[in-house]
Amino acid sequence: MTDVAAQLEALTARLQVLEDQAEIIRLIASYGPLVDAGCADEVGAIWTEDGVYDVDEMYMGSRADIVAMVNGEAHQGLIAKGSAHFLGPAAVNVDGDTAVAVCQSILMVHHKERFIPARAGIHHWELVRTADGWQTTRRTSRLLDGDLDTRALMAAGGKGERRG
Amino acid sequence: MTDVAAQLEALTARLQVLEDQAEIIRLIASYGPLVDAGCADEVGAIWTEDGVYDVDEMYMGSRADIVAMVNGEAHQGLIAKGSAHFLGPAAVNVDGDTAVAVCQSILMVHHKERFIPARAGIHHWELVRTADGWQTTRRTSRLLDGDLDTRALMAAGGKGERRG
Amino acid sequence: MTDVAAQLEALTARLQVLEDQAEIIRLIASYGPLVDAGCADEVGAIWTEDGVYDVDEMYMGSRADIVAMVNGEAHQGLIAKGSAHFLGPAAVNVDGDTAVAVCQSILMVHHKERFIPARAGIHHWELVRTADGWQTTRRTSRLLDGDLDTRALMAAGGKGERRG
Repeated sequence: MTDVAAQLEALTARLQVLEDQAEIIRLIASYGPLVDAGCADEVGAIWTEDGVYDVDEMYMGSRADIVAMVNGEAHQGLIAKGSAHFLGPAAVNVDGDTAVAVCQSILMVHHKERFIPARAGIHHWELVRTADGWQTTRRTSRLLDGDLDTRALMAAGGKGERRG
Repeated sequence: MTDVAAQLEALTARLQVLEDQAEIIRLIASYGPLVDAGCADEVGAIWTEDGVYDVDEMYMGSRADIVAMVNGEAHQGLIAKGSAHFLGPAAVNVDGDTAVAVCQSILMVHHKERFIPARAGIHHWELVRTADGWQTTRRTSRLLDGDLDTRALMAAGGKGERRG
Repeated sequence: MTDVAAQLEALTARLQVLEDQAEIIRLIASYGPLVDAGCADEVGAIWTEDGVYDVDEMYMGSRADIVAMVNGEAHQGLIAKGSAHFLGPAAVNVDGDTAVAVCQSILMVHHKERFIPARAGIHHWELVRTADGWQTTRRTSRLLDGDLDTRALMAAGGKGERRG
């Protein structure tokens, strides 16, 4: 390979990592607006078909489960009152065709003309490159209540590691 | 065109999109610190000269209007007490020389030694590339109170679409 | 230098700036998850060995001081109850081998089954490129209580300037 070809290849590889990071950041940043708008299909498309969304009190084992949650009575009631699933900036670590990301969140709920911080959470994302772009294979969300398993999950995310 | 020239052109185009996204993300992330610091001119420079900032209870139809709002009695009183116009990470979609971005926000107000989450909102940004970098042509901000028009605006932003 | 060599060099320089910005954004986004998980060494590694973390009520003059804070009784008590050092997206300005970033924050504390927004703050970061990647030389954190020095610090951050 010529020197120019090698340099082009190296630049392309570096660019690809940045594009991957940027796409994952955009994907995660779109979750809150989409879920608070009630866009069930678009929220579902953040996951793979068999992607998992594991929340404290609820386990969703597929994209269909996630779409059903958004369309469900509990979520529809929440967004009809007004809510912000306010996610912080994701720290993303790309490793070839998979990635790990972590972010924190505050759930704001509109109630009697006020906004109540109903919960603060941590979100550990595992993602995969697909033909349709980056998608989530597993998102694990936990309440920040001091639990040691939650802190271990958060530590893994902060270090760019898959959950233990 | 030679193969090397074509590759250089393709890399440059991909790099440009990433630079555009990064600049818009930085621009939006600077809003909160600048507006809470009272930097009226720097806040104004986030918009074009005839840029619009459309908030529920207030319509600003130009950069001059926005600068006047920052310098105005209501905003100055707010920041003198202490406030955080805390914006979340923006999901940005660049399309050539225009872009759409969306983010959520929590307005924290300092009051009697406590911090009160005074409002949670959604922000739909429309931006344009100018000779001075990316600027906002229209920012539409709405309280997250469950209103259906607000949810439609949020959905558009989450999908990278201009407002309806 | 040939035209191709010049173009490769220019692309590499632009790519480097984006990589620097992305790394700093990831570094700052990892702070909250790491500090709420109690990962003292990983939090410490966000700073240089002699890096400063200057908070209103506490001055830490080295990485060792910061590690000791994370391992200390006050912080350990806080994270055992449950906390989110929820930082917003950083606006980053890279200038060669140094950088300035600014972000806002909300500290959420879990207390009696509720989450309390205990403080809102501003964070002005000064960073340097090292052999181990970007690290913080000084982070200055202030409560958003309307103080004029705090607003000057926030203005500097929003403009990409070092503190005055």
